[in-house]
Amino acid sequence: MTGNTLFDRLVAAAGPTWHSYTRHDFVLRLADGTLPEAVFRHYLIQDYLFLLHFSRAWGLAIYKSDTLAEMRRAQGLVAATLDVEVGLHVEYCRGWGIDPAAMAAAPEALETVAYTRFVLDRGLAGDRLDLEVALAPCIVGYAEIAAERMADPATKLAANPYKSWLDMYAGAEYRALAEEAKVALDEQFARRGGEGRLPALAATFAAATRLEADFWQMGLDAAR
Amino acid sequence: MTGNTLFDRLVAAAGPTWHSYTRHDFVLRLADGTLPEAVFRHYLIQDYLFLLHFSRAWGLAIYKSDTLAEMRRAQGLVAATLDVEVGLHVEYCRGWGIDPAAMAAAPEALETVAYTRFVLDRGLAGDRLDLEVALAPCIVGYAEIAAERMADPATKLAANPYKSWLDMYAGAEYRALAEEAKVALDEQFARRGGEGRLPALAATFAAATRLEADFWQMGLDAAR
Amino acid sequence: MTGNTLFDRLVAAAGPTWHSYTRHDFVLRLADGTLPEAVFRHYLIQDYLFLLHFSRAWGLAIYKSDTLAEMRRAQGLVAATLDVEVGLHVEYCRGWGIDPAAMAAAPEALETVAYTRFVLDRGLAGDRLDLEVALAPCIVGYAEIAAERMADPATKLAANPYKSWLDMYAGAEYRALAEEAKVALDEQFARRGGEGRLPALAATFAAATRLEADFWQMGLDAAR
Amino acid sequence: MTGNTLFDRLVAAAGPTWHSYTRHDFVLRLADGTLPEAVFRHYLIQDYLFLLHFSRAWGLAIYKSDTLAEMRRAQGLVAATLDVEVGLHVEYCRGWGIDPAAMAAAPEALETVAYTRFVLDRGLAGDRLDLEVALAPCIVGYAEIAAERMADPATKLAANPYKSWLDMYAGAEYRALAEEAKVALDEQFARRGGEGRLPALAATFAAATRLEADFWQMGLDAAR
Repeated sequence: MTGNTLFDRLVAAAGPTWHSYTRHDFVLRLADGTLPEAVFRHYLIQDYLFLLHFSRAWGLAIYKSDTLAEMRRAQGLVAATLDVEVGLHVEYCRGWGIDPAAMAAAPEALETVAYTRFVLDRGLAGDRLDLEVALAPCIVGYAEIAAERMADPATKLAANPYKSWLDMYAGAEYRALAEEAKVALDEQFARRGGEGRLPALAATFAAATRLEADFWQMGLDAAR
Repeated sequence: MTGNTLFDRLVAAAGPTWHSYTRHDFVLRLADGTLPEAVFRHYLIQDYLFLLHFSRAWGLAIYKSDTLAEMRRAQGLVAATLDVEVGLHVEYCRGWGIDPAAMAAAPEALETVAYTRFVLDRGLAGDRLDLEVALAPCIVGYAEIAAERMADPATKLAANPYKSWLDMYAGAEYRALAEEAKVALDEQFARRGGEGRLPALAATFAAATRLEADFWQMGLDAAR
Repeated sequence: MTGNTLFDRLVAAAGPTWHSYTRHDFVLRLADGTLPEAVFRHYLIQDYLFLLHFSRAWGLAIYKSDTLAEMRRAQGLVAATLDVEVGLHVEYCRGWGIDPAAMAAAPEALETVAYTRFVLDRGLAGDRLDLEVALAPCIVGYAEIAAERMADPATKLAANPYKSWLDMYAGAEYRALAEEAKVALDEQFARRGGEGRLPALAATFAAATRLEADFWQMGLDAAR
Repeated sequence: MTGNTLFDRLVAAAGPTWHSYTRHDFVLRLADGTLPEAVFRHYLIQDYLFLLHFSRAWGLAIYKSDTLAEMRRAQGLVAATLDVEVGLHVEYCRGWGIDPAAMAAAPEALETVAYTRFVLDRGLAGDRLDLEVALAPCIVGYAEIAAERMADPATKLAANPYKSWLDMYAGAEYRALAEEAKVALDEQFARRGGEGRLPALAATFAAATRLEADFWQMGLDAAR
């Protein structure tokens, strides 16, 4: 396994669970434009609620930092989320006819509660490496999902209402953020890890990946 | 509202959500003996996994204690769970043909993750009162559920395979534990609360109650 | 007590402990320019180490937020500390002949450990109000200290090497930050408090104030 | 370093800091019976306050457990502390003329705050291994201190008012508990560690050891 990043090893250890998330029906239908709009709207609303807990998770990471550099990276992600992403998300949703106030007041779906609180609990019960591993299926996974769809001939960008979503996560800016997250995992594994930790980290990663797949499924179920 | 306990006020604030949990179809069918056994087995396995996080929650409560008395109450609940309940549960499940090792290795259901991690997050983000309020639908609710079923003419105890479950939670010992939990809520509300906190506590209580209802529903869904 | 802010009530409850901190010998000698420079240098180095844990405390506050507004206020304070203050502090210390690398590598004094970890523990064991109350003697106290010294005829600004320190904390920018912290305490007390919480909050505030006084004393002791 | 326990390696990494704690003047004078009684009384009172936070630390360890076995070990230590040790300590102190109520109401010394909150913060910011490493100088150290004194010809047990203290920590029961703690460190290092973690763990261990030495010094200083 020499040369592999921690992220690659976690993906390998997750086995078919990984593709059950990254190649979930929700993703495939988003890419070919056949995803019902009601499904996407439901996802967008829950994703907004997710973002708030995502910010809390990186706030927690500031607390759990050992070095100024670690603190600054976490603070950068909180700032990017609260100062930029939340606003962009609100605007994007408005474009989909979703009222910001209604979105903020929407009840959290079971799947949203499960994934966000699982991440926070791993981060509090474990250390910062546990926290970042639990967040990796989301941060790094979205970049991989978008890149894979963009490279797939089945993907249709013309007249696809979800094209901007794919563009964003396949874009250079998001890709850089995902790469940074992978590098951070390796740095922390060097400093806080060791082979003995692999099984527990792999279990966390696989559980988080399953919860992400449930998050896609939530949208499909809600529309039924 | 004078004279009401905090628990009563939280139940009142939860409105119909409370009965959607305490009078859930799972409960009614358990009481009249028509609940499919596969449903109950699924519930038992997830309830075992729940117990482990329940112990973690009371361990957290020890950490969050301000007084020796608060510490001792939490430690008593951890001890009762780890030293007694876990063993009883394993034996009870064996009677239902559930292998202890298989149970310990069973994957956590989405509903189990959602409820347990929600409770732990409330306990860590908030204070001990937030934690105990999030746990109240479980601790106090089970006593109320059993008492209500026992008083219901539709309940059939003869030849009901779930009779021992009802007996346990309707029993004097469990009732005393539930009463103690209600008293503790009032004590903490006096020392750490105030009317201004009611809306946030009520939101936590209602969310936890919804997650408990989802936990019942999980069993029914799994059997489908 | 109607009309008083929570901060005013906490100061009143702290009794003489408050002035043992705000009118500590360190402060009076800083204001009249007679503080030995070695004392101030020792203080500056420990204050740098304090800043890192101060950032961690506000990172924790992001995690402990219930609303987007709460998150943003905490994030603003982390950003102000990590993006601005840490850099300013390093430059200021360089002016006092303190090497940045040596400062970052300096061992934490007992008093620094005690105050910073006390704050973090209150924040984790309690809720965000507990955390902000533990931080208030620092945030609000520094503004009060500087204002009081500036109004004192015994203070000598001419040829006082500590003038810039007084100017900073007596300045409009810092005063506004302190006022904001007082308002936030009142908002949180309204939403998460109640009279029953006063004794515990007052105990936290008084303990934190004592630890701040110990922090001043540390400098004086170190120079002996 | 093969064959060494993690504890041995942490002691080696701490260098002279370790003996500055285990062979502190307080310890040597306790062993030869020349420690002023007022010093010991001050220590006893602060040690009682320490015990409460020690219980909180093991409560936190329950929360931070990954397995039932880990939970049970932590719960056993909370139970031993709250159900047995606290009571024994109160009785022992009564024998030294210390009133239980006065002891419970005594203000925490700076050194007590520093050590206990440092441990809790390491435990919350890090994982359970960080927590147990921060506790090791106390748990394992006391057994080593007592054993070393018992083997030292300078130690005088006849007419030594502190003989029972030495007997307790040199006794088989306490020695077994310390051995268990060392084994637990190795188990966790195998499962959660790796060589890369050594420097950070060693820094935590050394800092905790220094704070323990400060705790001894506190008694001597208080009597001056």
